[in-house]
Amino acid sequence: MVKYPNGTFAAFRKSVGEPTFKKNQKSNYYRKNINFSDRGMTLEQMINESNKFYRLKEIAVVHKKPTPIQIVKVDYPKRSRAVIKEAYFRQESTTDYNGVYNGYYLDFEAKETKNKTSFPLKNFHEHQIVHLTECLKQKGICFTIIGFTSLNRYFVTPANVIAKAWWTQNKSSVTLTEIEEWSVEIKSGFQPTLPYLEAVDYFIADRKSKNGKYKI
Amino acid sequence: MVKYPNGTFAAFRKSVGEPTFKKNQKSNYYRKNINFSDRGMTLEQMINESNKFYRLKEIAVVHKKPTPIQIVKVDYPKRSRAVIKEAYFRQESTTDYNGVYNGYYLDFEAKETKNKTSFPLKNFHEHQIVHLTECLKQKGICFTIIGFTSLNRYFVTPANVIAKAWWTQNKSSVTLTEIEEWSVEIKSGFQPTLPYLEAVDYFIADRKSKNGKYKI
Ligand SMILES: [Mg+2]
Ligand SMILES: [Mg+2]
Repeated sequence: MVKYPNGTFAAFRKSVGEPTFKKNQKSNYYRKNINFSDRGMTLEQMINESNKFYRLKEIAVVHKKPTPIQIVKVDYPKRSRAVIKEAYFRQESTTDYNGVYNGYYLDFEAKETKNKTSFPLKNFHEHQIVHLTECLKQKGICFTIIGFTSLNRYFVTPANVIAKAWWTQNKSSVTLTEIEEWSVEIKSGFQPTLPYLEAVDYFIADRKSKNGKYKI
Repeated sequence: MVKYPNGTFAAFRKSVGEPTFKKNQKSNYYRKNINFSDRGMTLEQMINESNKFYRLKEIAVVHKKPTPIQIVKVDYPKRSRAVIKEAYFRQESTTDYNGVYNGYYLDFEAKETKNKTSFPLKNFHEHQIVHLTECLKQKGICFTIIGFTSLNRYFVTPANVIAKAWWTQNKSSVTLTEIEEWSVEIKSGFQPTLPYLEAVDYFIADRKSKNGKYKI
């Protein structure tokens, strides 16, 4: 077993980032990753950067879950690493992010829209709503980060607000006004890029207070 | 947006299980999954079954993280779903399992050995040890489930015990005696298959007590 000196772990950290893609490749995944917002980063990239910052500062440990893949065929070339030759994207059964912050379990989904006045609920899948509700029952801090990329505005919205809207018949979107009313807005910055834990602190205080607004 | 009636969610649940593999296929992953222990299940299968039970009973929400894959080439055939044509296994940056149990963040790695007297530490990677230690600092309940498959014995061992052994120079394994001393042994059963939350309850009580043994 190789027990690396501390120095090499930073190098290791670098190697475990997001998947890399060949340029000029026609892949939805690739396109999604370079769908740059005004700030030059997608919401997902902003959150990943923030999580890196929070982890290195020992403030919180939050990771993005890998995309679930169904592997069908793998080649094992001699003197070379295994190559997956046939695989399919699978339905995700949970949200994109979870982790731990000062004893609290965090679970959230990040979504962005180019709309300027409302967020379409079709961006959520039922299993994500169900998963967030399951985690809420276990006293997790569950929320969504909604990015209005055209407005450069970011909201941390409690999961129960989204779940309630999602289960409302004939409601296909949440208006920006509703989101403003029921979320904590956060400003994108430098370190961290998206300080969503400020909203989490707010939710934790709200939970502790007798007449909290969010019932989170 | 399709809002499924409750009934179909059970069906959805079934479809989001472990990846399936073609039979007679030479894949380490396949072999790993059919490496049946005496009970006809691998440790991972036992834990997945237990997690399903805990989730359906609303006792805890714990999921296995998907295997991280680096996707290089994807085909988008007309009238058919996307096919990944070239991809590679990536180094995992976290442990296999995490989730939430009554407000507590759980994080653990499951490992099995055919050895009868000790558990080889080379089964752990540095990043797993580092991740568990990071989560411990955030007050998560962090542990490993070690299965001695030849003995049909299962131990829930606090992460700090494993981390301490791992960082000890020239220590290449933890003896069964040490594991017996510093773990909670759990018996495999029917529902859940592996009741590891009994050990978690023990750790939580230990944490609350002034002179706890585990310092978890
Ligand atoms: Mg997502
Ligand atoms: Mg593992």
